[in-house]
Amino acid sequence: MSSPLKQHDSPSVSAHPLQDLHDQVAGDMAAVNDMIITRLQSKVEEIPKVASYLIDSGGKRIRPLLTLGAAALAHPLTPAVHMLACAVEFIHSATLLHDDVVDESDTRRGKRSAHLVFGNETAVLVGDFLFSRAFELMVDTKSLPVLGLLSRASCIISEGEVLQLANTGTLDVHMDDYMRVITSKTAALFAAAAAAGPALYESDQTVQDALYQYGHHLGIAFQMADDVLDYVGQHQEMGKQAGNDFYEGKVTAPILFALQYAGETERAFWHKTIAQHDIGADDFEKALSYLHQHDAFSKTHHMALSHAQMAKDALAPLPDHPIKSIFEELAFFAAQRDR
Amino acid sequence: MSSPLKQHDSPSVSAHPLQDLHDQVAGDMAAVNDMIITRLQSKVEEIPKVASYLIDSGGKRIRPLLTLGAAALAHPLTPAVHMLACAVEFIHSATLLHDDVVDESDTRRGKRSAHLVFGNETAVLVGDFLFSRAFELMVDTKSLPVLGLLSRASCIISEGEVLQLANTGTLDVHMDDYMRVITSKTAALFAAAAAAGPALYESDQTVQDALYQYGHHLGIAFQMADDVLDYVGQHQEMGKQAGNDFYEGKVTAPILFALQYAGETERAFWHKTIAQHDIGADDFEKALSYLHQHDAFSKTHHMALSHAQMAKDALAPLPDHPIKSIFEELAFFAAQRDR
Repeated sequence: MSSPLKQHDSPSVSAHPLQDLHDQVAGDMAAVNDMIITRLQSKVEEIPKVASYLIDSGGKRIRPLLTLGAAALAHPLTPAVHMLACAVEFIHSATLLHDDVVDESDTRRGKRSAHLVFGNETAVLVGDFLFSRAFELMVDTKSLPVLGLLSRASCIISEGEVLQLANTGTLDVHMDDYMRVITSKTAALFAAAAAAGPALYESDQTVQDALYQYGHHLGIAFQMADDVLDYVGQHQEMGKQAGNDFYEGKVTAPILFALQYAGETERAFWHKTIAQHDIGADDFEKALSYLHQHDAFSKTHHMALSHAQMAKDALAPLPDHPIKSIFEELAFFAAQRDR
Repeated sequence: MSSPLKQHDSPSVSAHPLQDLHDQVAGDMAAVNDMIITRLQSKVEEIPKVASYLIDSGGKRIRPLLTLGAAALAHPLTPAVHMLACAVEFIHSATLLHDDVVDESDTRRGKRSAHLVFGNETAVLVGDFLFSRAFELMVDTKSLPVLGLLSRASCIISEGEVLQLANTGTLDVHMDDYMRVITSKTAALFAAAAAAGPALYESDQTVQDALYQYGHHLGIAFQMADDVLDYVGQHQEMGKQAGNDFYEGKVTAPILFALQYAGETERAFWHKTIAQHDIGADDFEKALSYLHQHDAFSKTHHMALSHAQMAKDALAPLPDHPIKSIFEELAFFAAQRDR
């Protein structure tokens, strides 16, 4: 899935392309935020309580911003696009709720994970509600192409999550297995988020394909950067614990790069910690030292940047537009971000 | 929600109206069973493994049979109806998988629950897959009315499940709370299953409404009988443990009927077992004895029968048809079934 890094002439990366994107669609994003609150309402009071605990705690909202920005590249924005952006955020939040149960992670966005505060059961069921509500929103757009795109993406996401689980706690994972997981669990929703507006407007197939491919490569770059940040991010600021993936036995790109050149002693270490899940007090530090020794983080960034370049290239067929330039910068930002 | 039991002149209840219904749509049901297997396929091999563990173990298939039968009352059956029946069974199976995680029940259909065999995580994620696949099937019918009907039902189901959870482990639950839970978590899918075919064919609104109401009351009758069976069913044959609801602190109709006339000692017993979750070795037997003493099971059946009658009445606007008669019998059968 990866390709050699193409030459990209040190693109002038804006400090905050996500902020720039937000500024371009600020009014629409405000409408989406209002819609998120409205559509979380339920006669069952636990539902908005749990869901807003997660959604209010404010992620980057990169997915709904992507939906709005991509739609604006294809057509002036309409209220139906707000529904799509809201649906995309709900699907993402549902997978976070279910993922937290699965991963038994303790913190999400700086707060205790919803499943620890409200119980595993509630987290599963509120996730189901968000997922159903997302489909209601899509049905409200009355667009079968959109429904096809996003229902297919939802299937692929759950396949990716199951595959990731099957690949946990084993070293029998190769780079193409890893790429398959992140393509499914992350890039599929980014791609569908970017293509949803153009599908709604039934834009030229070239435009739809370009934005789908952009979202796909952006999602891969974003996830690879995430997998580096899991080891070296400023976790207090990110509101996550360091080393979640390591402690859970998830083999991501950095470990795969380390394994390529690992000697016998190091192999034994990865086998003990990942496959046998026997992790001592100093083992996370030791893992970090092996990963640095093999330049595993910069190799991962390098691969993420190659996908950022592919994301940029995917936009080539589109005419000039301020959002097109921001999208180009956003891809490189996502690949190298420090939070 | 309940109404006084109307006089129904001891309808001639067939021993097996579900079998009679099956016989009426046997060829179509075979096609649905094939479709279930085909649509469970995934490149991720764990998915068909887990899903077929649940689906093959053969429930009553009452929901897809309801979809086929109701559709046949409105219009000759077409392949698109098979997709709806398959989607309805997938939604039901997804909620079972998530419900098992939630309830920590140990047995389902005579086998160890999927979440104990494959892990909570896999059960949640495969449930998500089934749910997404159900939506893909609905999208394949290209019917927006169907998509609206079933996405609304999915929302209501998850609201019902959350509400049930909120009502667990407390005696502060009244008959209307209970009715709200079973209307949402069970009757909503029965109603949508029955109305899906007519919605697909865009039948007369009278026909759609009649079948929706039929499914709604059938679902209530079915669930109330289920709540009796949870205490007194032949659990070895049903493949369930006796007393799940009691051990989980779920207050269903039988306990609500007992509480209406409970004295101080009995109230203290229910408080200890349900609210404080302090359950001794003989407490299930004691609960049974209180419930029998108050005729709680026959009162529950009585109420279930009143919904069976309402289900029958709902069919009145429809012309005579063999399936109409079977549906009438099915409602009374569902209310009084012994497994």
